[in-house]
Parts: sequence; structure tokens; C-alpha cells
Amino acid sequence: MQVKAIAAVGPDGPLEPTTIERRDVGPDEVRIAIKFAGICHSDIHTVRAEWGTVNYPIVVGHEIAGVVEEVGENVTDFKVGDHAGIGCFVDSCRECENCEAGLDNYCLNGNTGTYNSIGRDGLPTAGGYSEQIVADARYVLHIPESLPLDEAAPLLCAGVTTFSPLRHWNAGPGKKVAVIGLGGLGHMAVKLAHAMGAEVTVLSQSLKKKEDGERLGADHYYATSDETTFTDLRGAFDLILNTVSANLDLKAYLSLLRTDGAMVELGLPEHPMEVPAGALVGQRRSLSGSMIGSIAETQEMLDFCGEHGIGAEVEVISADEVNEAYDRVLHSDVRYRFVIDTSTL
Amino acid sequence: MQVKAIAAVGPDGPLEPTTIERRDVGPDEVRIAIKFAGICHSDIHTVRAEWGTVNYPIVVGHEIAGVVEEVGENVTDFKVGDHAGIGCFVDSCRECENCEAGLDNYCLNGNTGTYNSIGRDGLPTAGGYSEQIVADARYVLHIPESLPLDEAAPLLCAGVTTFSPLRHWNAGPGKKVAVIGLGGLGHMAVKLAHAMGAEVTVLSQSLKKKEDGERLGADHYYATSDETTFTDLRGAFDLILNTVSANLDLKAYLSLLRTDGAMVELGLPEHPMEVPAGALVGQRRSLSGSMIGSIAETQEMLDFCGEHGIGAEVEVISADEVNEAYDRVLHSDVRYRFVIDTSTL
Repeated sequence: MQVKAIAAVGPDGPLEPTTIERRDVGPDEVRIAIKFAGICHSDIHTVRAEWGTVNYPIVVGHEIAGVVEEVGENVTDFKVGDHAGIGCFVDSCRECENCEAGLDNYCLNGNTGTYNSIGRDGLPTAGGYSEQIVADARYVLHIPESLPLDEAAPLLCAGVTTFSPLRHWNAGPGKKVAVIGLGGLGHMAVKLAHAMGAEVTVLSQSLKKKEDGERLGADHYYATSDETTFTDLRGAFDLILNTVSANLDLKAYLSLLRTDGAMVELGLPEHPMEVPAGALVGQRRSLSGSMIGSIAETQEMLDFCGEHGIGAEVEVISADEVNEAYDRVLHSDVRYRFVIDTSTL
Repeated sequence: MQVKAIAAVGPDGPLEPTTIERRDVGPDEVRIAIKFAGICHSDIHTVRAEWGTVNYPIVVGHEIAGVVEEVGENVTDFKVGDHAGIGCFVDSCRECENCEAGLDNYCLNGNTGTYNSIGRDGLPTAGGYSEQIVADARYVLHIPESLPLDEAAPLLCAGVTTFSPLRHWNAGPGKKVAVIGLGGLGHMAVKLAHAMGAEVTVLSQSLKKKEDGERLGADHYYATSDETTFTDLRGAFDLILNTVSANLDLKAYLSLLRTDGAMVELGLPEHPMEVPAGALVGQRRSLSGSMIGSIAETQEMLDFCGEHGIGAEVEVISADEVNEAYDRVLHSDVRYRFVIDTSTL
């Protein structure tokens, strides 16, 4: 099946309209008519070859929401017409200790990315900036009918990337959670942590988005450009999620954790982080990292969002606005996620 | 009461014999006739003013084992003749959240060090390189009679500093624990982790102490100077305790952790640690720190050591050998802890 898509043809040029081939639906697979695809910063890193080798032309996009149009004969848990989503990976080895434990996002043999990977059929994978996608049903998620598909798309990456560490580090009533950065990931972290019952603080460079932050569920909002923030909040948090990929002054941020608190990195700053051991040793603090979430957790997150009426805050764009949107993402000029309406492809 | 001691009179000179005053025993206090005092690297950092301001002359020593000689009228859980110990702190605020939770080693108002602190009486504290010490019974530990006092002394710092993270990060049957460095802390970590039932691996610069390590309880022993160690042991450990204070290649060491594994810093390297975020994010690993242990944990550790017949490996020295011992500690030339026989003061 030939479907319309937008592809990067090289690291420097703009994305361009193209056509790609989607394979026939296998017995364990489903074909989804993509309705919306979120634009994640990872897409930009990838098309610009900032994260390693890319096989051009490449179709990116791993925040995919759509409607099932075809199901393979062995598939029992999806039917035509279901709302469905695909996130950052479409397969994993299924055999390693982590896959067997349901931690397929940490597959020890490397899972198969939704784009820029090689699938079991030996062909390059292609992502969500396209009309249709075919994937093994095991890696396809159910999107609750109550969620608009445009607001649901970013849940598949930004949603689960923040949901997973919030759950793993027990965000909930009585816990104080700080979120560094109010962007695509950050705004989801605020919504989710708030819905889990935690007391949520946003740590942002300025107070520019303070009203938004509070509307999204933040109980407190501090500017990190203000030195007093770090004295006022010393030892305040059980958990800090860092959603920005810049190299921060970790000594200052770690001092905001209480005893046994954890700061969790969700991004990949370009340079190694500089961590003074005393900032960890003195109060048994941890600096940790977390990467997206498992398929099971992604489903749990979507169900949670369905129950709580949580979607992403999105700016829906047409296919011909993607390059402009990339520039705006790089300038943090989006509240809070661009989503491509694939009917405009 | 005037008692003999050894003091540092400045950051550069040798330690010298002196006499210090010990206060009368208060109603909640005990007086201990010190029999043995371990030499911890922290003592050396302190006397050399490498960890901040020092009020000279100073008597250091926070691995103290002795016999109770006098008890205050309110003290019910010690009697004259009991074997007793004192570790790194002799008081804490007793009011903060951490003190109330029994985490007095992480007292938020700063606990009172066994030396180089100011006690409740407003006077500088003085440590274990002396004949007698008076302390609040709440911060005094029971040493099981089955443990020789010379071997027990180092348990009060080196023992609990490794016991606490082993317990906190659940070392035990089915868990793979690596210990970086086979020195004062490292050799205790090996003994304790082995006794807890974990599978223990020593990561040492060379294989020089391999036989010792295996005798102490290590199941495996690898040289970190051998590059293949890092490929052979990739993803192998649930927990890595770093007992050396050098700045290590953390990317390499973190890669030895399995998913959800933790590397715990017990020392304070001079420079900030350089941590590539990817080493944490990719497998939800943590880099943490831990500082000694609470009084309750110290007692638990001593009881555990009593049950399992665990003492430190010590080289007992006389008071006039302390300066030479310091030099040897700085050259890692001790197996595995110097202990001063205070009868030679």
C-alpha cells in the first residue's frame, strides 16, 4: 500500500512530501489510519542526525493516534474502528529478561524504534508523519474513546515518558513533586502528577507560563532565574523530574531534594552532567534516569488519562507547517505540543 | 577528668601526645574506657583541614570500642562493664523529621560529630584517640561480647557505612553486589554482603588482593585495569558500592548495572563526578550516595556482626605508630584497618 507521508531527505534540508510503502497486514498485526502525529523534539534530533546515523529519506513521528482499519486473523483485542495509538517502539526481542518482565522499553537487545530502525521484515521502519501504519498488535495501544485523538497523540511519548517515572517513584498523595521545564514533557508531568494526587511545583526559567502551569495543575510555580528559589525550596521535594535537556547546575537542583529524594533525568543533555558526590551522599539522594515506558505502562497511562480526562495541550497544524513548527520547537515557542493533522498530507 | 590522648596541633605537623579534659558523666550519659580506636581516612582528611575548618588542637577518631566505666542515673540500658562503642556522631537535634524517623545520621540540623563539632555543653568534641569518652547513652552502641574489641572498633564507621546501603538497597540472596575497592570500607562491604547472602564481586585496580578478597567472602574478583572487565560484566549488578574516593569513569561503571540497578557513592571524590545522562536513562539506573548509618542501624549492624562472627581485619598499633600509620593509609598500605591500642597512650 502506497501512503502519503512527509520525509527528511537529509540532515539540513526541510521535510518534504513523499510517498512510502506500508506492508500488508500480517496475522498478528493491525493497520491504523493515522489521524494525528505529535512532533517530539526527538524527531528533530533524529532528522538532523544529532543522535547518530540516519537512513535517509526518513519519516519520523512516534506520537501516533488513529483508527484501526484492518486487523490480522490472530488479533483478538483490536477491531476495525477502534481508536489506537503507537508510541516510540513497534517491536522488541520478546525474549530477554526485561521483555519477559514487561519492561520492553528497556529491551536488552534493543527494541525496534517506530522510525530509524530495522523491523523483523528487514525493512526500515517509518513513523507517524504519514497516513497509515502497520504494526504488531502487541505494540499497539488502545486509546480511550473519551479522549480526542489530537490531544491523545502526544500521550504516546510525552505522556508515558512522564507517567512512568511518576509511577515508579511513587508520586501520589503526600508526595512533593517538582517538574523542571514546562514544555511538551513538562506540561504532561504537571497534569499527571496532579491527577495522581501529588503536590506539584513547576521550576521554570521564568514566570512567563505561571498561569498556564497553575491551570494545568501546578500548586506552586518558581522561577529558577531567581536565586531565592533554591534557598526557599531547599530539601523540599521527594521527586524532581527533569524534562529539559540542558546541562543544569545539579548541585543546586539536588539540594532541593529531601532525604532519600530522587531527581530523574528524562532527556539527554549534550555534555556529561557534573555531580558533586556530597549532594548525593549527605542526604542519601539519587540521580536517576528513565526512558519512555513499557507497553503495559503506556496502556495504563492511557486508561488513567481516559478516566481523568487528561489530554495534551496541542496546537494542531497542517502538513505544510511542519518545518515552521520545527523552528518554533527549537525556540520553545509552542504550548505545548504540535500535532500534525494527517488529513492534510 | 584529665585523660591521655593524641592530638593534631595543625594541618601539617605530626600527631602528638597530649592530655584532654573529659566532662563529668551527666544523668543520661555514660563514660567509656576506650580500648581501641580505628584510623579512618576521614580522620586524616580532618586533621589536614582538607574538609574545612578545624579547631586545633584536635583529637580525632570515630571508630571507638571500649568498656563502660560509669553510667548516669537515668541510663537503664548500659551498665558498668558492658562492651560499648561510639561511631561518627555523639548527638543530633532529636527534633527534626529525620531524627524523629530514626535517620539521625541525616539530621537536618546537622548532627554532632564525635570530633571537630561543638557539643550541647558548648565545648568542642574530641574523638577516640584517647583513653576515655563521655557521651549521651542514646548515641552509644552495644558491642556483642563475642566480638574482640579491636576488630569491633572499625565496625562503628567502616562497618555501618557499608551495612546501611547494603540493607537500604536490599542486598541479599539473588542479588549481585559489586564492591569497588578493597580497603577499609571495601573489605567490610565484602564481609557483610556475603553474610547477607548476596553474590559479591570485588572490582579492584589489580588482582593483588584477590586471595584476600575471596577469603573475606567475594565470589568473584576482577581487575578494573583490565578493559575486558567492563565488557564481561556489562549489566551484571543490582548494586555497586563505590568505596574509593577517586574520580572514576562513571560511564564505564554505570554500564555494569542492570536495569534499575544503583551505584552508591560512599566517599567524597575531590571533583564533581561526570555522569553521562544516557548511562542512567537507558536502563533506569541510579547514582546515589549514602552516609554512615543511623544509631539504630549501627546497633542492628553490630548485632548482625555478633551473630555472624564478623569483625574487621585489623592491624593493631601503638600510639607512637600513628603518624607512620597515616602515611601508610595514604599509600593504601594496610590490610585493612589500623586500630590504635589506647593502652599505649
